[in-house]
Amino acid sequence: MEVLKAAGDREAAGHHVVHMEVGQPGAPAPRPVLAAARAALKDGRFRYTDALGIRALRERIAAHYGEAYGTEVAADRIAVTTGSSAGFNLAFLAAFDPGNRIALATPGYPAYRNLLGALGLEVVNIETSADSGYVMTPEMLVAAHERAPLAGVLIASPGNPTGTVMHPDALRTLVQTAERLGIRFISDEIYHGLVYAGIAETALKHARHAIVVNSFSKYYCMTGWRIGWMVLPEDLVRPIERIAQNLYISAPDISQRAAVAAFDATEELEAVKAGYAANRQLLLDKLPAIGFDDFFPVDGAFYVYASVRRFSNDSVDFTRRMLDEAGVAATPGPDFDRERGHAWMRFSFAGTGEDMAEAVARLGRWLG
Amino acid sequence: MEVLKAAGDREAAGHHVVHMEVGQPGAPAPRPVLAAARAALKDGRFRYTDALGIRALRERIAAHYGEAYGTEVAADRIAVTTGSSAGFNLAFLAAFDPGNRIALATPGYPAYRNLLGALGLEVVNIETSADSGYVMTPEMLVAAHERAPLAGVLIASPGNPTGTVMHPDALRTLVQTAERLGIRFISDEIYHGLVYAGIAETALKHARHAIVVNSFSKYYCMTGWRIGWMVLPEDLVRPIERIAQNLYISAPDISQRAAVAAFDATEELEAVKAGYAANRQLLLDKLPAIGFDDFFPVDGAFYVYASVRRFSNDSVDFTRRMLDEAGVAATPGPDFDRERGHAWMRFSFAGTGEDMAEAVARLGRWLG
Repeated sequence: MEVLKAAGDREAAGHHVVHMEVGQPGAPAPRPVLAAARAALKDGRFRYTDALGIRALRERIAAHYGEAYGTEVAADRIAVTTGSSAGFNLAFLAAFDPGNRIALATPGYPAYRNLLGALGLEVVNIETSADSGYVMTPEMLVAAHERAPLAGVLIASPGNPTGTVMHPDALRTLVQTAERLGIRFISDEIYHGLVYAGIAETALKHARHAIVVNSFSKYYCMTGWRIGWMVLPEDLVRPIERIAQNLYISAPDISQRAAVAAFDATEELEAVKAGYAANRQLLLDKLPAIGFDDFFPVDGAFYVYASVRRFSNDSVDFTRRMLDEAGVAATPGPDFDRERGHAWMRFSFAGTGEDMAEAVARLGRWLG
Repeated sequence: MEVLKAAGDREAAGHHVVHMEVGQPGAPAPRPVLAAARAALKDGRFRYTDALGIRALRERIAAHYGEAYGTEVAADRIAVTTGSSAGFNLAFLAAFDPGNRIALATPGYPAYRNLLGALGLEVVNIETSADSGYVMTPEMLVAAHERAPLAGVLIASPGNPTGTVMHPDALRTLVQTAERLGIRFISDEIYHGLVYAGIAETALKHARHAIVVNSFSKYYCMTGWRIGWMVLPEDLVRPIERIAQNLYISAPDISQRAAVAAFDATEELEAVKAGYAANRQLLLDKLPAIGFDDFFPVDGAFYVYASVRRFSNDSVDFTRRMLDEAGVAATPGPDFDRERGHAWMRFSFAGTGEDMAEAVARLGRWLG
């Protein structure tokens, strides 16, 4: 947010900035979504819906699990949420009690940590790096649980800020380990659909007790609509319905009605994804020669999490100078990893191809 | 919710039901709001906004305080929220610590209580009735604070389920008492604009530390858009911005852009309100003769909170029979008042005039 503000200030002062700090698609919502929203506006009545969402959307999401993963999921287990933000809040409130210990992989998305803290839950950091294949391993989970019992573990694959995708076998063994130990598995799958290397499997395949959190914000380009979903184990459906009723009443009606059409926009969305894939390839080709030659595997999402060690041991200062002197905005690592992030930085490649080429040119000149 | 489900089941079985259980306007969003949403859809890019909302809406809401109350409020103190649900959650998280005691008037809105409980806060019930002029008095607040210190007090005027409006002097002395005792005052003003008798004053007039929660759901007929706002004391702006960023990211972009136009729809919205006023008058004229002759003052909102003591001491059973035998759905009192609600019931008059006339006719036949 500080970077976003500094970038905005620089633009207000008349400078051009290439935005590689923002974690959201540049493309508009797909045409069928916009058409569905326009049709809903003709009626103009947007009411509270059922707390778990309108039936048509819950059924369409359930069907998506058959189509995309070959997994059968009952519509009754789907909860439509006000973005994945609501999904995480509901999951944490329903599954955990204050004081519970929850394992997170670092580097990771800062809102998890902040939200867990606000709810009185204890974050247990599990550091990932090249040594662990860049992901949390069953051994790491067991070791943390043996130090003091864990109530939950949260995994994102593809990850943010890393973009790294867990191999299906690695995900399976981790889920099975958590289930065996009675640790609630929460699977952040909001970057599913945006995978360039490997396969992003859903944790549902291997888990009876897992909570899956997903969103229309990333692959479906519906960020500002604030609409996402969860797939719940049966024992959590009623508790989450009650909490959702009190905390949210329901997700936005227009966004729910529009999101039903998102699954009919595959061609358009795959074209957007092809743009990300081209951006990714450009960065993979060019960044190493500029000096960014150490990064987590860029398998999915739209991020490169790169070491800045060649240039600086203070990525907050480095990104500030990069913005001021090169006109390229990115996010410093400490947002994602308080311990080691000072040597890392996140580039987002959700922008246009022109932006990426311009960024690479500017960085080359600046660092050359 | 149980009533809503039972009413739905009855309709699915082919019976006609008059809905007096729902707390939302039957009218669509006003035309300028729909036009603004349509215009926004032409672009199709709905992004995360600033956590506190888009500037245009924050400024328009701030201006509304000058127009409606003659009170100057800086736009920087406005936080746009995902409905008032988010407003209450943010207020409670920012202003209180787990274990704090928060005073609520009963009868009152059940989500307050449930949300406070979920956050580990202790609810202190303050019973209102004819003896206290149907509202919480400074004496009642002082007495509760002397038993054990209160961290906060939450007041709704007009109230839900009561529809009762605090006299401006009563509100002023209560706010001043809270401020003097260092008790954070939270003012639920979501039914402002819907006042038929008396004046609903904003707590901002008398408070330096109060939090005001408001919404576009009621007067502005934007229920399903999930959009509301808060007016914050300066010391809470940054804390709430941070929590909102982590818990919500932002309110829905399309709803924010549409809501700016809600303040230009006064003529249309006053016509909707005139319909409620006519419904209210019909109920005030007819309910006593049917046997509902004891209710809280129906000054605002769109509710009559009536005693069923003449007919039953179990309003849950009574409303169930009323639905089954008379085809009129209402909400039983225990939702709003666990101690005394068994003898009370809430009628909503947010429906059409035809619905109200039909309900009165059915109830007269059933109880006659």
